[in-house]
Amino acid sequence: MLIVKKFGGSSVADKERIMNVARRCIEDYNKGHDVVVVLSAMGKTTDRLLEMAADINPDAKKREIDMLLATGEQTSVALMAMAMGSMGVSAISLNAFQVVMHTTSEYSNAKFKRIDTERIRHELDSRKIVIVTGFQGINKYDDLTTLGRGGSDTTAVALAAALHADACEIYTDVEGVYTADPRVVPNAKKMKEITYDEMLELATLGAKVLHNRSVEMAKKYGVQLVVRSSLTEAEGTVVKEVVKMEQMLISGVAADRNTARIAVIGLKDEPGIAFKVFNLMAAHKISVDVILQSIGRDGTKDISFTVAKTDMKDALAVLEENKDRITAQRIESDDKVAKVSVVGAGMQTNTGVASGMFEALYNVGVNIRMISTSDIRITVLIDEEDVDKATRAVHDKFIPD
Amino acid sequence: MLIVKKFGGSSVADKERIMNVARRCIEDYNKGHDVVVVLSAMGKTTDRLLEMAADINPDAKKREIDMLLATGEQTSVALMAMAMGSMGVSAISLNAFQVVMHTTSEYSNAKFKRIDTERIRHELDSRKIVIVTGFQGINKYDDLTTLGRGGSDTTAVALAAALHADACEIYTDVEGVYTADPRVVPNAKKMKEITYDEMLELATLGAKVLHNRSVEMAKKYGVQLVVRSSLTEAEGTVVKEVVKMEQMLISGVAADRNTARIAVIGLKDEPGIAFKVFNLMAAHKISVDVILQSIGRDGTKDISFTVAKTDMKDALAVLEENKDRITAQRIESDDKVAKVSVVGAGMQTNTGVASGMFEALYNVGVNIRMISTSDIRITVLIDEEDVDKATRAVHDKFIPD
Repeated sequence: MLIVKKFGGSSVADKERIMNVARRCIEDYNKGHDVVVVLSAMGKTTDRLLEMAADINPDAKKREIDMLLATGEQTSVALMAMAMGSMGVSAISLNAFQVVMHTTSEYSNAKFKRIDTERIRHELDSRKIVIVTGFQGINKYDDLTTLGRGGSDTTAVALAAALHADACEIYTDVEGVYTADPRVVPNAKKMKEITYDEMLELATLGAKVLHNRSVEMAKKYGVQLVVRSSLTEAEGTVVKEVVKMEQMLISGVAADRNTARIAVIGLKDEPGIAFKVFNLMAAHKISVDVILQSIGRDGTKDISFTVAKTDMKDALAVLEENKDRITAQRIESDDKVAKVSVVGAGMQTNTGVASGMFEALYNVGVNIRMISTSDIRITVLIDEEDVDKATRAVHDKFIPD
Repeated sequence: MLIVKKFGGSSVADKERIMNVARRCIEDYNKGHDVVVVLSAMGKTTDRLLEMAADINPDAKKREIDMLLATGEQTSVALMAMAMGSMGVSAISLNAFQVVMHTTSEYSNAKFKRIDTERIRHELDSRKIVIVTGFQGINKYDDLTTLGRGGSDTTAVALAAALHADACEIYTDVEGVYTADPRVVPNAKKMKEITYDEMLELATLGAKVLHNRSVEMAKKYGVQLVVRSSLTEAEGTVVKEVVKMEQMLISGVAADRNTARIAVIGLKDEPGIAFKVFNLMAAHKISVDVILQSIGRDGTKDISFTVAKTDMKDALAVLEENKDRITAQRIESDDKVAKVSVVGAGMQTNTGVASGMFEALYNVGVNIRMISTSDIRITVLIDEEDVDKATRAVHDKFIPD
């Protein structure tokens, strides 16, 4: 079997953890498997490098930022190869130049185009554990690129796809994907299986277990993922296309506090006004989520939408600046809100979920301010202070104890 | 003009020094010159990385050590490009993969084979300052290699040769090459010029201004070097093939405390015994310097030689282990010794230097234990406690005030 194993920054933060990861990889190697390991930069290295860069030049070119950040993963992989060497196992570290990992040209947010497998296969054939730098690639100019935060997950999936790996294991500090955040919902259960689409909805909604782009890529290339803990031997959660029939109606409940509501009041009720508002947001790279448009009355209408809390200040500034152009009478905002969502592939064929969710929320006195839905998801915007109560109520409603 | 400028680790140790180096390079750039900058790793980075490696695996493969160390220079060059960017100058950092700098395969002690100039020329043609990682290269397996300590000097010279640069400036924390260590000899003078051969003798003898291999390469390719300070505007010392006629008989006096004397006593006085002793040292990669062999008497003879102080323990262990094979009666050692040397190309045609040196040492009561000479150098082994006194006396004798 060829296994790709990915470990994040906290799993290689110090010598002890590096040794621990080395041992886990060697276990599989000693069973006769081919093992490819993808690593992030150690602990807070990437943040530290970004601080150094910002101190020298707050507007540094992204090309140079990527050149700088790429040293983080190179340090991890070299040390890991040494750690495995100290345990008597032959291992070799490879960076993006050596693999080669071809990406698009865009710095700090590149996407994989192609991964050469010759060097890795050659090293595996000589029975070495191959340790690859996550998060980075090379563009057509032979310059280093990075994939953006969480990019090491994507590296692991891309490598698993290119190498036709039999397994792709994403190691993290939790034991798998849960039906809700166990810190909020004590009886939340670890899922044995979840579909790509459900995982995508959960990832988008703030369950920070897997990077979204990596799930999309896994779905596209049919790479079966396992999310498991680097600290325990627990089995983890399998992410794949179709899960067993005994699946639950709802696979999980996710909460997202990084949300704020903006209301644009008193817009002229004429065609194209909504377009102007959202075009402004897009032009300033502000992502808009749940949208609610009031029915026109007295020749005016209101538009409410949510943005990430971190984008609220920018969004308000842009709207105020263009108040006349979009014919707004005034702009209101509220950052004391949050989203709670239920996600489940089974929802597609069951119409009772929305009403069940609303009933559960009503029973615990939670007011719903906005609603948005997809085929496999229902999201409600509520007051931030109600989030934990709402999450527990919805979880109790749908997930059998 | 195309200028290659090399700055060592202490010149880029923190933000302020990085900014200072950026400004100096931009001065030349603004005069219309093409500027290529070679950097070492920041401050004590290389030592820190080596400690991390040793902590994880004291016997780590050199291939992985080089992979780890190479991150140090990559960090420097990326930050320097950002620093220049903050001053409004277009700069680009390049690592060994991007240049490409081809070396021999030997890890941690590689030698340059060939440097591709296409990428650098392309960037210079678009009026960018090009910042290159010192100390590192790529071997035929596409693996990172390092050149050994001081290797960034060699990178600068190799680049200057490959690019046919008009100047190669080595920046350091002293103002040039001095006739003696100014901390020991207060009236030591900065030399305006010195030949490659004199510089080589001085470098070998512990004047740590330039890395030896870089001087050899500069001589081989006729690259004229300038050694100057990164902190002042002083003119520095030019290192070249032939210096002006008004050169002094003696160009400098060097002291080297990293030396120890070993005496192998009571060897059988028969052919091949000396060979056996030095063959043992060579097999254990211990460099032997000054050698003194006694005249045979009663069928035995003694051999004394010096090694680096840091090699003494190993040398003694090897000799004790092979005591019978080399027919030695006993091994003695003394690490309270040091070397003082006078170096000067003018010495080749003047026979009075040796006697002048011995006279000067006699006058201050310094006992000479061993002597070795080359065409342009006389070295004496003396007691370590006499080093400063001896250096001053010899300097006073030969260097006019």
